Amino acid sequence: MSSVIGSHIKTTVFGESHGPAIGAVMDAPPAGYKIDFEQILTQMHRRAPGKDPTATSRNEADTPEFLSGLKDGITTGAPLAAIIRNSDQRSKNYDNIAFRPRPSHADFAASVRFGGFNDIRGGGNFSGRLTAPLTALGAVARQILSANGITVGGHVLGVGHSFDMPFDPVNIKADELNKLNKEYFSCISSDAKEAMTKEIAEAKQNGDSIGGEVEIAVVGLPAGIGSPTARGIENVVSSAVFTVPAVKGIEFGDGFGFTSMKGSEANDQMYYDGDTVKCRTNHNGGITGGISNGMPLIIRVALKPTPSIALEQETVNLSTKQNDKLTIEGRHDPCIVPRALPAIEAAVALALLDLIGEVTKL
Amino acid sequence: MSSVIGSHIKTTVFGESHGPAIGAVMDAPPAGYKIDFEQILTQMHRRAPGKDPTATSRNEADTPEFLSGLKDGITTGAPLAAIIRNSDQRSKNYDNIAFRPRPSHADFAASVRFGGFNDIRGGGNFSGRLTAPLTALGAVARQILSANGITVGGHVLGVGHSFDMPFDPVNIKADELNKLNKEYFSCISSDAKEAMTKEIAEAKQNGDSIGGEVEIAVVGLPAGIGSPTARGIENVVSSAVFTVPAVKGIEFGDGFGFTSMKGSEANDQMYYDGDTVKCRTNHNGGITGGISNGMPLIIRVALKPTPSIALEQETVNLSTKQNDKLTIEGRHDPCIVPRALPAIEAAVALALLDLIGEVTKL
Amino acid sequence: MSSVIGSHIKTTVFGESHGPAIGAVMDAPPAGYKIDFEQILTQMHRRAPGKDPTATSRNEADTPEFLSGLKDGITTGAPLAAIIRNSDQRSKNYDNIAFRPRPSHADFAASVRFGGFNDIRGGGNFSGRLTAPLTALGAVARQILSANGITVGGHVLGVGHSFDMPFDPVNIKADELNKLNKEYFSCISSDAKEAMTKEIAEAKQNGDSIGGEVEIAVVGLPAGIGSPTARGIENVVSSAVFTVPAVKGIEFGDGFGFTSMKGSEANDQMYYDGDTVKCRTNHNGGITGGISNGMPLIIRVALKPTPSIALEQETVNLSTKQNDKLTIEGRHDPCIVPRALPAIEAAVALALLDLIGEVTKL
Amino acid sequence: MSSVIGSHIKTTVFGESHGPAIGAVMDAPPAGYKIDFEQILTQMHRRAPGKDPTATSRNEADTPEFLSGLKDGITTGAPLAAIIRNSDQRSKNYDNIAFRPRPSHADFAASVRFGGFNDIRGGGNFSGRLTAPLTALGAVARQILSANGITVGGHVLGVGHSFDMPFDPVNIKADELNKLNKEYFSCISSDAKEAMTKEIAEAKQNGDSIGGEVEIAVVGLPAGIGSPTARGIENVVSSAVFTVPAVKGIEFGDGFGFTSMKGSEANDQMYYDGDTVKCRTNHNGGITGGISNGMPLIIRVALKPTPSIALEQETVNLSTKQNDKLTIEGRHDPCIVPRALPAIEAAVALALLDLIGEVTKL
Repeated sequence: MSSVIGSHIKTTVFGESHGPAIGAVMDAPPAGYKIDFEQILTQMHRRAPGKDPTATSRNEADTPEFLSGLKDGITTGAPLAAIIRNSDQRSKNYDNIAFRPRPSHADFAASVRFGGFNDIRGGGNFSGRLTAPLTALGAVARQILSANGITVGGHVLGVGHSFDMPFDPVNIKADELNKLNKEYFSCISSDAKEAMTKEIAEAKQNGDSIGGEVEIAVVGLPAGIGSPTARGIENVVSSAVFTVPAVKGIEFGDGFGFTSMKGSEANDQMYYDGDTVKCRTNHNGGITGGISNGMPLIIRVALKPTPSIALEQETVNLSTKQNDKLTIEGRHDPCIVPRALPAIEAAVALALLDLIGEVTKL
Repeated sequence: MSSVIGSHIKTTVFGESHGPAIGAVMDAPPAGYKIDFEQILTQMHRRAPGKDPTATSRNEADTPEFLSGLKDGITTGAPLAAIIRNSDQRSKNYDNIAFRPRPSHADFAASVRFGGFNDIRGGGNFSGRLTAPLTALGAVARQILSANGITVGGHVLGVGHSFDMPFDPVNIKADELNKLNKEYFSCISSDAKEAMTKEIAEAKQNGDSIGGEVEIAVVGLPAGIGSPTARGIENVVSSAVFTVPAVKGIEFGDGFGFTSMKGSEANDQMYYDGDTVKCRTNHNGGITGGISNGMPLIIRVALKPTPSIALEQETVNLSTKQNDKLTIEGRHDPCIVPRALPAIEAAVALALLDLIGEVTKL
Repeated sequence: MSSVIGSHIKTTVFGESHGPAIGAVMDAPPAGYKIDFEQILTQMHRRAPGKDPTATSRNEADTPEFLSGLKDGITTGAPLAAIIRNSDQRSKNYDNIAFRPRPSHADFAASVRFGGFNDIRGGGNFSGRLTAPLTALGAVARQILSANGITVGGHVLGVGHSFDMPFDPVNIKADELNKLNKEYFSCISSDAKEAMTKEIAEAKQNGDSIGGEVEIAVVGLPAGIGSPTARGIENVVSSAVFTVPAVKGIEFGDGFGFTSMKGSEANDQMYYDGDTVKCRTNHNGGITGGISNGMPLIIRVALKPTPSIALEQETVNLSTKQNDKLTIEGRHDPCIVPRALPAIEAAVALALLDLIGEVTKL
Repeated sequence: MSSVIGSHIKTTVFGESHGPAIGAVMDAPPAGYKIDFEQILTQMHRRAPGKDPTATSRNEADTPEFLSGLKDGITTGAPLAAIIRNSDQRSKNYDNIAFRPRPSHADFAASVRFGGFNDIRGGGNFSGRLTAPLTALGAVARQILSANGITVGGHVLGVGHSFDMPFDPVNIKADELNKLNKEYFSCISSDAKEAMTKEIAEAKQNGDSIGGEVEIAVVGLPAGIGSPTARGIENVVSSAVFTVPAVKGIEFGDGFGFTSMKGSEANDQMYYDGDTVKCRTNHNGGITGGISNGMPLIIRVALKPTPSIALEQETVNLSTKQNDKLTIEGRHDPCIVPRALPAIEAAVALALLDLIGEVTKL
């Protein structure tokens, strides 16, 4: 009972897959920022389905309509709302799941949560489709950050057993991120992308799906952003990123790799680079004590395989109270990772904008 | 600028390591719950330093004093506050770090954030000591959850290259958790604990520190807890857990292991066990669509090695603007993982209490 | 920088008078409530301009489009969003005020707040037009309250020197409120309404405007709603009601009348009416200690005269930094009170829904 | 279930009249402000009971102990906590009200709200005693505001039928406020104070109590503070002020006086005073569109007579379910208004600090 990302600059996401529209409201971006609609469309395009064999063949018209908060393309400081009309809905595809929750989907848990009144069609409010408005407002946040010298970007780090090369956590540059930010299925290595694409195609051919992980970097974030205890960057970014469906893990800097490390290996030695305090390594992923230290943010996020697979599965019939079988029909992504990447970047951007907005100087 | 865990039942943590006292306020626990002070002390004891060679030799009197919210040991429904007096402070140990931030500590980032006015002694507001009131109020939350049939527990899963056996995600029982909940440095396997202890002792001997990870389980949580989008269990629990210093990663269910899994492997098949819907596996760690599905919650958390090591390190002198060297003196934990475990369990308990408090039936 | 009403069930209002659309999102209504669209239109009609000589002659098509949160007219438990398209905009009417803030309007203060980037046309985000989505979502809240036996209603208590008879604070009934809830310019006494209408017509004829006050009652609210300290009914309702432009005062029960009262006059003596605890009087307006006591809520709200008047006024020219004169053109309400009434009732309904949603029983 | 004032800089108040201590935590004041403890004691003294015949003869040691957030008397930017030990408790005085709620007190409503588990002794969490930590942290807020050129002050405007002269809303100066800020029972006119004192003494002699109202002014607040819709100054200040027990009404500028005014009378004509935009009148009390316009804030607050009177009253016996009689014993204020004044000023100061903290420039 809070579809709101952020505490200071709050973004509320709304909509259901098969309702009239989905959308989001940001309350409120700072005034005076020029927003380039083309850059928003670029992000929408990275998230949109139907572009290649790795994605669902559904056709979504993902052009957001901005309803408020802009005048002549410049933020007014008032809440910024955008909606995206739903279309191409084939509700009948979902008829057979009304009482038979899909394994590993939200269906059963949501049914209990909302007493069966939730809209089950297309996943309803739990649909991955809600990442479209998230991506749109995230694209607004990215531009505001960018105007302040901060760049958010990412790539698909792994799918199945294929992996891209990780970012250089010390030397990653805004240019590299901006290049990735224009691509669908962003990867540093084209060989890695090819290998991942092959794994996804195999899964699809088998009526199966496959998981993966992404890596996000943020460069240009000044030291001193974030607050102690419960409003550190890790608290706020993780909370925002889990908004993207299928995300099941997040780590910052060396993350789970720290388990096997010594302090002498893990500590980032400090030095002056001119007047700027820097670290020789970046095991902390740019965050110490929850607060940015001026080094690039490094974030990795794990996503589970899409639970919608074509294979017959065991479920229950909530109506008859009997065990049952289910075969999910319809068009589904064999791997959600490439399309989830811009949504995760959007969540990171919204979280950072929220945190920056909070650091007030009286 | 929000040391508050939770949105509905809010816990504010305050204090600085070398100030008069640390504490926390929960606004507000539900009325009518009997709170057993002994159970709180058990948790405080699990977190307290000085108990064995793996921990710092500092001596902290960690008995919380409850100031409000209880009458005859029963919650009144009013805010519940507890404080812990600081003592055994050796401020002089920290004099040499005033302008020389310790690598991988909050020192530098906090100095920028607060314009140098933050209390640097003992880590100030960033000190691991603030997990003491967190643990105390978490112990209150645990008892309220327990009265509702919900048990939170955990163990040290790994330190360095030594690992405990993981929980059985389907069959883990409250009894097993309750046994672990009474121990310092909880482990399932005593051999694993011995191996971890040895790694920690080696690190200490070398003036070094070592990282690790913990695993938390929650049993008895009914299906239907959590909300879509930004208030799912993963959002709220992750945000709370990153409150504990040194935490750098979190995963739910199979987490990062999903990267290499197929949907057909990852999906949890459903069936009726009597009238109860269950899953044959629990790759999702009890959470789908952000909402509990009735299976045990499974959470793993990574912690970096304590950055306070005895070895000489590179730092900067913020006063002279020159590069400098630093050797950290004082008594420090070579491995924070065993002591962080009850604090992480406390954060999970507070997050769940917050989420349960939000699911209102009109 | 937070256009959000409520803490538990949050309603975000967005839009600008001359932008594409205005709207609101409620995050989130409880699931399973049937919403009657006709009742929403009734409230929109009460708020709509152009209906009689007391209101502006602008023509607004105030039919909300619901985008989410409903399936077959029943709340799903997901965020409920509604928008209203803007039309009939005559932007040119506002050209002469771009640098000459209208006295007692938000213009100057907003210009400073947003660095001049706010949309000044039609009042922008400060326009009374934003009470349209507030009224729409308030009408949803009213229906949810009504299904729980709670009725919110009100009347215009005074305009200029003409006053309606006040509610009987002890015996006011839901039927009386429901009758008023269907009317435009609700009054108990038709004579009073006639006198007020006459005062408004006179003000209009003089190119002037006139202030007034409204009285709201809530019946059927059970005892025990509201929380101590900062989440009492008075805190939450007042905060919500000041969302309506032109509101400058609020009082509960005898309010400012308490100044001249003795405790022996002001205290509400208690007795059993069957099994129900009641009060013989209701000076407290149904609220003690911030919590409902089972008696009707009684709330009075003061509104200033519309600042848009046709008379020439003194202002400043922010461009030339010189004193200037201003004559406001365009069509304006000579008295906003009748149209503000349903918006204030809506704000009260949203506040109460928020408070009820918070009273969780674990 | 939120004893929290503020959204950005949050102050949580806790404690019960007869528990170990009461207190408050501010999360978090900006870093780097020197706090003068003497000024805090001055405010505590203004609020403290037992100083003259108009107040209760109870003796409260109201010296706050600051536990965190200060180093060498300067704010660190970490949460600032203060507690006040309870003493001089005479619990036996309250035994006879356990099942017999006092008319117009919180007793009955709170009993329903908390299922009878609330601490009824001395009003528990609803006690006016909780205004002590509010006043203490408000005194911190006042000093931070003062360092930014903003002065909050007030006076008792009326008690019974005796009234002080109101502030000059255009020309009120910081010096006048600072003079009032040092006094107990602040009044501009000593004659008025004498008349009020006489009315209070009469009420006391009759075993009765009496209501009143206060007027608050804020000078030096720059234009542009506050946000549209739900975070305007009126929303946030009113929500904070109703935290003080007995408050039943609030108005800004001419407030309820607007009812009988024309726009031509009510509008504040604007002009340049040098480079500063000012208004010739200040009917709006310094706030238009919810945002400060640079003129002094003018706020009036109504308080009901203390419900604790010595006269026999009608109540119910919740145990026997019968009507009953009650005579309240113990020492009580015949008029709470003089002592409530500094608490209301504190609430205003905390609200403004919260609002200022929110206006971020990226």
